[in-house]
Amino acid sequence: MNITYPASKKIYLAGKIHGIRVGMRRISLTDTVAENGQHTKNDPVVVYDTSGAYSDNSVSVDIAKGLPRLREAWIALRNDTEQLPAFSSAYCNSGLNDRSSGSVRFPVTHLPKRARTGKDITQMYYARQGIITPEMEYVAIRENMQNDVSGISTRITPEFVRSEVAAGRAVIPANPNHPEAEPMIIGTNFSVKINTNIGNSALSSGIEEEVEKAVWSCKWGGDTLMDLSTGNNIHETREWIVRNLPVPVGTVPLYQALEKVEGNISHLTWEVYRDTLIEQCEQGVDYFTIHAGLLQAHLPLVKGRTTGIVSRGGSIIANWMVLHGQENFFYTRFEDICGILKQYDVAVSLGDGLRPGCINDANDDAQFAELSVLGDLTLTAWKHHVQVLIEGPGHVPMHRIKANMDEQMRHCHGAPFYTLGPLTTDIAPGYDHITSAIGAAQIAWYGTAMICYVTPKEHLGLPDREDVRAGVVAYKIAAHAADLAKGHPGAQVRDNALSKARFDFRWKDQFNLSLDPEKALEYYQAGRMESETDHCTMCGPHFCAMKLSKGVCR
Amino acid sequence: MNITYPASKKIYLAGKIHGIRVGMRRISLTDTVAENGQHTKNDPVVVYDTSGAYSDNSVSVDIAKGLPRLREAWIALRNDTEQLPAFSSAYCNSGLNDRSSGSVRFPVTHLPKRARTGKDITQMYYARQGIITPEMEYVAIRENMQNDVSGISTRITPEFVRSEVAAGRAVIPANPNHPEAEPMIIGTNFSVKINTNIGNSALSSGIEEEVEKAVWSCKWGGDTLMDLSTGNNIHETREWIVRNLPVPVGTVPLYQALEKVEGNISHLTWEVYRDTLIEQCEQGVDYFTIHAGLLQAHLPLVKGRTTGIVSRGGSIIANWMVLHGQENFFYTRFEDICGILKQYDVAVSLGDGLRPGCINDANDDAQFAELSVLGDLTLTAWKHHVQVLIEGPGHVPMHRIKANMDEQMRHCHGAPFYTLGPLTTDIAPGYDHITSAIGAAQIAWYGTAMICYVTPKEHLGLPDREDVRAGVVAYKIAAHAADLAKGHPGAQVRDNALSKARFDFRWKDQFNLSLDPEKALEYYQAGRMESETDHCTMCGPHFCAMKLSKGVCR
Repeated sequence: MNITYPASKKIYLAGKIHGIRVGMRRISLTDTVAENGQHTKNDPVVVYDTSGAYSDNSVSVDIAKGLPRLREAWIALRNDTEQLPAFSSAYCNSGLNDRSSGSVRFPVTHLPKRARTGKDITQMYYARQGIITPEMEYVAIRENMQNDVSGISTRITPEFVRSEVAAGRAVIPANPNHPEAEPMIIGTNFSVKINTNIGNSALSSGIEEEVEKAVWSCKWGGDTLMDLSTGNNIHETREWIVRNLPVPVGTVPLYQALEKVEGNISHLTWEVYRDTLIEQCEQGVDYFTIHAGLLQAHLPLVKGRTTGIVSRGGSIIANWMVLHGQENFFYTRFEDICGILKQYDVAVSLGDGLRPGCINDANDDAQFAELSVLGDLTLTAWKHHVQVLIEGPGHVPMHRIKANMDEQMRHCHGAPFYTLGPLTTDIAPGYDHITSAIGAAQIAWYGTAMICYVTPKEHLGLPDREDVRAGVVAYKIAAHAADLAKGHPGAQVRDNALSKARFDFRWKDQFNLSLDPEKALEYYQAGRMESETDHCTMCGPHFCAMKLSKGVCR
Repeated sequence: MNITYPASKKIYLAGKIHGIRVGMRRISLTDTVAENGQHTKNDPVVVYDTSGAYSDNSVSVDIAKGLPRLREAWIALRNDTEQLPAFSSAYCNSGLNDRSSGSVRFPVTHLPKRARTGKDITQMYYARQGIITPEMEYVAIRENMQNDVSGISTRITPEFVRSEVAAGRAVIPANPNHPEAEPMIIGTNFSVKINTNIGNSALSSGIEEEVEKAVWSCKWGGDTLMDLSTGNNIHETREWIVRNLPVPVGTVPLYQALEKVEGNISHLTWEVYRDTLIEQCEQGVDYFTIHAGLLQAHLPLVKGRTTGIVSRGGSIIANWMVLHGQENFFYTRFEDICGILKQYDVAVSLGDGLRPGCINDANDDAQFAELSVLGDLTLTAWKHHVQVLIEGPGHVPMHRIKANMDEQMRHCHGAPFYTLGPLTTDIAPGYDHITSAIGAAQIAWYGTAMICYVTPKEHLGLPDREDVRAGVVAYKIAAHAADLAKGHPGAQVRDNALSKARFDFRWKDQFNLSLDPEKALEYYQAGRMESETDHCTMCGPHFCAMKLSKGVCR
C-alpha cells in the first residue's frame, strides 16, 4: 500500500534535543513567468503530513507486517516499562488460542508493554516532571508547519508543548503498545485536528476494506482514527488497523464489551468491561471514549427530548442503569479505570452520552449537567496523570455554539474539547458533512482542539471510500479555516502560495497545493476545451478578471 | 418540463388584502406508531417553494411559450405603466430584425412596459406612499413558512414588509416586464435568500442546457438567478431564461456591452452601455450588478495585492479607466442610470469590483474604500426610489467576516447585503461550495440578506447540473442555519419534524422533509441489506442509540 501526492517529496526534519526525524511533505512549485519571459522562483511549501511511511518512497509497507515501530527505541530508553510475558486479558488469550479466527488474524510478533510497578509513564506525568520527551519535540517540530521556510516565527517550542501537556491543556496520545503512530498533539493552542471514524457493523464491511479505508483517511489528512466496529472480529479488525496506522487510534471499549455478552445490556459487568480495557490497552489503542459522566440523576432530564439519547455508548449505559437500578459503573469505577489507563498511557476521552441529537435538544439541562460531571472526572484522571479529552456535541444551531465552548471552559479546567460537528441544522441528510463543517469551523475557532468528522452518509448508512474522502476534506477545510482565524503560525502560507499560483495561472501548482489535488485536476480537465493556459472555462478569454487585472495591479 | 417532490402537494394560500394566491409546498407525513400499535397523526409541514408552476400538476409548462404571467393583472391595475409600441433599444431591434438568430430566438409575444411619464413605479416608491402592493402581501404570506399550521406567531405582516421596503432595508425585485416571477423579498429581517449563477461562456454551453440548469436551480431552492453569460446569443439565452423562470433574474449588463464591442474594452462607451441597460430592462431583468463604486482613486490601493482584481466587472472597468484616464462612467453617469432603472423597477446591485480574491487580500483598504462609495450611491438611488442591494466578498477568514457586515452597516444605510460566500480558506479548489458555505452561514447570521452560491467547480470551470445542485443545497444549508440562528419565525418547524421522524424511524418522512430527498434516499438504499425498519447500517441492530433510548426517554 502506498500514498502519493503530486509534486511532493517526503522530507524529514531533525530534532535538536532528541535524535528524531519528523516526516513532513514538501510541495515543489514552478517559477512565476512574467510577460517579458523573466522567471522568478517560488519557494516550496512544507505541509503537515499524516500519511506516515506510506508516502515515503524509500519504505515499502507490507500491511501483513505492519508499519515501522518508530517510537520503540524512545520507549525503551525511558526504561520505565516492562514487556509482559503474555497478554493480560482473558478474552485476548482465549482468542489467540482460538484457531477458527486464524484466517483473519494479524500475526502477533510483539508482546505488550506496561508501566513497571511504581512507575508513571504518561506524557502528562513526564511533562509535570519537566521532562521534554521525544514525542513532545516531535510535535513541536511538526506544528511549525513552515519551519524550513524562513521568516515564520516559531511560537511552538518543545518547552511550550511540555507546559501545555503538563497543564492538561493538550494531549499527546501515545500508548507504548502503538509505537507505529507518529506523535501528534491535541490542544487549543495547536493546529486544529480532525478525527475520522471507521468501523464495520454487524451488517457490512470486512477487515481488508476497513484497513484500506483507515489508511485512505490518513492520505486525506485524518489526524486520529476511531475504530467503532461493532460486528464480528472486532479484536482482529482492530489489530490490523493499529499495526498499520501512522496516527493514534481510539475506540469505545463498551462496544466490544457488549458484543462479548451477545448484545445483552443487562449482562454487562465491570469484570467484562475491565478485561476489555486491558485487552485494548495491550493491543495499542491510544484513547478510549468512556461515558462516565452520564448519571442516574440525569435520566429524568432526557424525558421530553425530541430525539432522546443519540450517543450509542450513552444509550447503552442509560439502559444498563435503568435495568439494574444502579449508578453508571464507569463513574463509580472511574478511579479503577484510571489505574488501568495510566499503566499504558491511554488517554481518556470523556464521552458526552447526552449530546443533543437535534437542534431542538441543543444546550439543554441534560447536556450541560453531564458536562459538569466530565469536569469533575477530569480532575480525578489528572490525579493519576491520565491525559483527558472532553467530548462535545452534536446538533447545535449557530447562535448556541459558543455557549458550548464557554461551558466546557467553565467546567473542564482547560482539557481539550473534542466535538462531533456540531451540525447546524437537521434538514440535510445526505449533506451532513456540510451542515456540520459549518459548525465545526466555528467551534474550532472558539477553541475546540479536535473535530470529529461527519460523512455524507451520516444518519443514513456506513461510509464508503468516497464518503470518507468527502468527510475528511470537509473537516480539513473546517480545521484550516479555524487555524487561519486563530492565527496559527504559518497556516496562511499555504493559502498565500495557492492564491499566488492562481493569479499566475500556474494551474498545476494551484492543484498541487490544494487539499485534494486529484479532484481539482479532474474538475479542471472536465471543463477544458483545448490547451488554454491563461483563462478557464468559467470566464472564457475576454472575461478573465485575473488576466485583465494584470495590467492594473502590477 | 416538470418538478416533483415526494409526498408533496402544491398549495395556494389566499391573500386578505389582494386577490392573490401564494404557492407553497405542503409535505405530508405518516403517523407515529407506538410500540403498542397506537397511531398518532403528524401535522404536514409547509415549506417555502421556489419552483413556481413547474411543481403544480394542474399547470403544464411549455418552455417555448413561457410561464403564466402571474403579476400582469396586478401591474395593469396600478395603471401607471404603458405598453410601448416597440422595443426601445437599437440593438434589440436590430437583433429582432436579424433572421439569422431565428433558430435560437424565443418568440416574442409581449411588447415592453415602462412607467408612464411622471409616474414612479418602484416597490420602494409605493412603500413610501404607504401602499401595500400585491407583491408585498405575497412575500408576507410566503415568509411565514408555517402559517397554515397553528401556533406560530406571524411577525411578518404585509405592513411590516411595506415598512422595510420603504426604509430600503428590503428589496422586492419586480420588473413589470418579468411578470412570470413570483414576488420574493431580500432583507435582513426576512429569511435568508440564495442567488444562483448560470451562464455560458464563449467556450461552452447552449441555450437549452442553460434554461434547464436555471429551472433545475429553482427545484433545489434557488431564490434568484443571475445569468452571467458572456458567449454567443446572450440576448436570446436571456430571453428564454426570463420567460421561463419563476424567480427574479439578475445580470451584469457590462458583460453584454463588452460583447457588443467585440471584447475591446477601450471601445466601451456610455452609449453602448445605456442601450444595453434599456434592452435588458425591457426584456424583464429584475436587478443589475453595476460596479459604480470602483473609482480611479482606488486603483493605487490594489497594487501589491496577492490576486489583484478578481471581479470580472471590476477588472473590466478598471482597465477602461486606465485606458481612458477617465473616472468610472458607472459612477459619473449614476444619476442617468437610476433614471433608466426607475422606469422599469429594476433594482441596482452595487457591485464590489474590489472584493478580495484571497485570504491575504481580505478587508484591505481597497475593499473598504469602495464599500464606502457604495454607501453614497445608495442614497442617490433611493432619491430616485430605485431599490438597492450591496454586494460583498469574496475570500475572508472567519475572524474577519463580522467586520465586513459591520462596515456595510456603517456605510450603507441599512441596504441589504448580498455576498459571494465568503470563502474561508483558499486551499480547497474543488470544494469551494464548502469553504464558502462556512463563511456564508456566518455572514448571513450576522445580517446578510442574500448569499450568492458557489459551486464545486468555482475557480476551475463552468458548473454542470450536478454542480448546480451541490451548490444550491450547500447554500440552502447555510441560509437555513442562519435562519435558525436568527430565530426566523417557523424556521425550526422543519428541523423538529425531521428529527421527530428520525427518532420514530419514519425513514420516508425524514427524507421527504430534507433539502434533497432523492440524495438521502439514494444513500440510505446504498446501505440497505434487507428490509430493516428500526435501525440502519451505521449502527446495526444492537447499537442503535435511538432504538435503545426509547425505553429510557419516553
